Amino acid sequence: MRTITIWNEFRHEREDDEVAAIYPDGIHEALAECFRTGATGDQYEVQTATLDEPEHGLTADVLDETDVLLWWGHEAHDEVADEIVDRVQERVLEGMGLLVLHSAHYSKIFKRLMGTTCSLQWREDGETERLWVVDPGHPITDGLGECIELPETEMYGEPFDVPEPDQLVFTSWFEGGEVFRSGCCYRRGSGRIFYFRPGHETYPIYENEEIQQVLQNAVEWATPHEGAPRSFGERA
Amino acid sequence: MRTITIWNEFRHEREDDEVAAIYPDGIHEALAECFRTGATGDQYEVQTATLDEPEHGLTADVLDETDVLLWWGHEAHDEVADEIVDRVQERVLEGMGLLVLHSAHYSKIFKRLMGTTCSLQWREDGETERLWVVDPGHPITDGLGECIELPETEMYGEPFDVPEPDQLVFTSWFEGGEVFRSGCCYRRGSGRIFYFRPGHETYPIYENEEIQQVLQNAVEWATPHEGAPRSFGERA
Amino acid sequence: MRTITIWNEFRHEREDDEVAAIYPDGIHEALAECFRTGATGDQYEVQTATLDEPEHGLTADVLDETDVLLWWGHEAHDEVADEIVDRVQERVLEGMGLLVLHSAHYSKIFKRLMGTTCSLQWREDGETERLWVVDPGHPITDGLGECIELPETEMYGEPFDVPEPDQLVFTSWFEGGEVFRSGCCYRRGSGRIFYFRPGHETYPIYENEEIQQVLQNAVEWATPHEGAPRSFGERA
Amino acid sequence: MRTITIWNEFRHEREDDEVAAIYPDGIHEALAECFRTGATGDQYEVQTATLDEPEHGLTADVLDETDVLLWWGHEAHDEVADEIVDRVQERVLEGMGLLVLHSAHYSKIFKRLMGTTCSLQWREDGETERLWVVDPGHPITDGLGECIELPETEMYGEPFDVPEPDQLVFTSWFEGGEVFRSGCCYRRGSGRIFYFRPGHETYPIYENEEIQQVLQNAVEWATPHEGAPRSFGERA
Repeated sequence: MRTITIWNEFRHEREDDEVAAIYPDGIHEALAECFRTGATGDQYEVQTATLDEPEHGLTADVLDETDVLLWWGHEAHDEVADEIVDRVQERVLEGMGLLVLHSAHYSKIFKRLMGTTCSLQWREDGETERLWVVDPGHPITDGLGECIELPETEMYGEPFDVPEPDQLVFTSWFEGGEVFRSGCCYRRGSGRIFYFRPGHETYPIYENEEIQQVLQNAVEWATPHEGAPRSFGERA
Repeated sequence: MRTITIWNEFRHEREDDEVAAIYPDGIHEALAECFRTGATGDQYEVQTATLDEPEHGLTADVLDETDVLLWWGHEAHDEVADEIVDRVQERVLEGMGLLVLHSAHYSKIFKRLMGTTCSLQWREDGETERLWVVDPGHPITDGLGECIELPETEMYGEPFDVPEPDQLVFTSWFEGGEVFRSGCCYRRGSGRIFYFRPGHETYPIYENEEIQQVLQNAVEWATPHEGAPRSFGERA
Repeated sequence: MRTITIWNEFRHEREDDEVAAIYPDGIHEALAECFRTGATGDQYEVQTATLDEPEHGLTADVLDETDVLLWWGHEAHDEVADEIVDRVQERVLEGMGLLVLHSAHYSKIFKRLMGTTCSLQWREDGETERLWVVDPGHPITDGLGECIELPETEMYGEPFDVPEPDQLVFTSWFEGGEVFRSGCCYRRGSGRIFYFRPGHETYPIYENEEIQQVLQNAVEWATPHEGAPRSFGERA
Repeated sequence: MRTITIWNEFRHEREDDEVAAIYPDGIHEALAECFRTGATGDQYEVQTATLDEPEHGLTADVLDETDVLLWWGHEAHDEVADEIVDRVQERVLEGMGLLVLHSAHYSKIFKRLMGTTCSLQWREDGETERLWVVDPGHPITDGLGECIELPETEMYGEPFDVPEPDQLVFTSWFEGGEVFRSGCCYRRGSGRIFYFRPGHETYPIYENEEIQQVLQNAVEWATPHEGAPRSFGERA
């Protein structure tokens, strides 16, 4: 049984009718559904946390029992307290998995773990995206076809200012002429991190079954292992 | 249930009394014991294959049902038929895991998959080795301490002419003053490859429980995933 | 002064009028012009070699004085003698740079150095390609803009069965909906290898000044360094 | 002509007689000498900067003209202002090279760029260290032998909590039984970063000519290239 915590900024859904129509209970609840239902539903304990809760819902207790944390944010990255970012970073280095979704490329926690600006190019024009599998043996691609097609998305384009991924799993093609490294795997300390591009607030991306499959695979991939001791300090 | 095939050259044990004393049934049988016994013994279907069998014991049928292949060889690398090397390489690229043990750094299959000479420095002087865990979050280190100490080993020293590993898991310290990258992870096609240094024919390395733990962990790590289609050729 | 050797299969140009019209003196001569002319023309000693010369023009003497070898082949990969492939591989591991161009992804030497099939998807339909710079700090991108647009090309699509590149410099977008990792850096032994996709025999790709800039940059990047000793064998 | 800026905390040398005896003008001046003298002395413009200067000596003007920054710190990492760390990080991402020396593994700027704790094990016991070249084709090893031996050093041991290096150039062997990844290359944004272990304040490490050779090679390797545009933001 994996314990998953889904963190969502949860502002657009309460401020914007268009977003509320797509995600009436918030993006976190739509994401939670990916893990609560279906053949694998009994493998996950799912909890959610949002920005406006005390400690953003990410207390030490919540993080201690979390195997994999999903992170969605967009308009309020700066409101996340540095102290909570410190806490999440520490847990990732100790082994907690982290899935960074769409506009969370600009979250404090992702920039902290990458060491770069995590900037990119973008255009919001509802264009078609194809996520090509470039690493068909990677477990995050289990059960997929050769690409995932999304009829309407926001475009993200290169350059994407992140360190070279340990493994590049997906590369996106956009109707308007751009490409993007859409599925990037990293390890930091004992933790596994997966950046996954799809997921804009005004498109129902998380209802797509192939996207749900990727999220489930990524959680499986990012689940902590026992490993060996992380022992630091003076040595006899 | 994983199906493991253990391939051994099986010459030293039949030609040299010292080796026969340590590995009376062959190194392959000692390795097989690591997987047949203990808490995880019911997870593995174990089969063995040796150089002097027809097709070196690696028929298409044997390889088709193999999840992970272990390879030990030393004095007769050149007697392995290129046609069998082709077959093993093809299966690795399709997803079969491969563990390359000790002197098999010079095997045809490892050189084929690496594209380099796989040369190194060596000295046979029964000196102490410590395998330090340099990547304590890696699943191949599950359950280990900070290092594994082997009282008597053959020394392997840098430079080791292999591509930069995808992940470096162990680095060895030798009493005589050398270091060596002793646990190296690679992916080629859909297959995972782990080079693991310990295992000389005149030392009972494979009776060491920590070494057995690494082998079990490595088999788990190298087990194939479903993945996405590997589709090549002309496209409409 | 760098010594560059440009190897070309040189068959299409002698067999096919359409190709001969674009490359009347052979693709090797068009490539040679990239290095003989312009501001940097005095930095290069350029020689050429082709399949139908004795030893394919790649004698030990020629290779010994070569800093960087460029390789273009397509229809006759199998006619390259294994003995010559051995010789080129040995020189690359000792430090010689290698640029692998377009359909040479299927050359024996590239497959040898990669350890994989180097397969891909393709479609010949004269469609527009954009090579996006995904690593704008890499020296191979010196002087380029954010992408290179080629009006008519053969499409190459993912998956591309190569090891994860050490650095991915370019990713291509194709009009028909595919993407491809078009500029891939590798190190094998002491040698640097750059795979660069553009260069089909029926399009005048090598007349494009941005493509010429990439080739010059790549030669500079792949030029050997002195390094430290590659000492292997028994150690006192 | 490269412009090098050498940053030093410059506290031990003013507080501790033992250190002052080895580095009477400060570690920064000893490092500066490596670049001012010898065959390559006319290739470098060398400037220094220290913690207790205004803005730690790292004004925007100083950084703007710096090709490669060297960083030595130990007891006062926390006194470096976050605003200056921001400025250095920004310049590295834009292309400035960075050499991180010895105890600067714990500097704010290195932790910022790595995203990890950069912790390690250590023991101060004046033991012998051998830095083995594990990547003999790397330009940072130009002119070296197979290893560098230092008769008395502080020990650093694994695990070293950094991301997997892009290239691992040196691995250290210590008399007391430990190993350490002593020369680690990274790229972040357009900048190149080299962590190099040797350099304790109570041993005259920077007088060693092989160490000086490595520092010169590393500066050459880390020198910025022109590259392609780093263009981010909304796209038409």
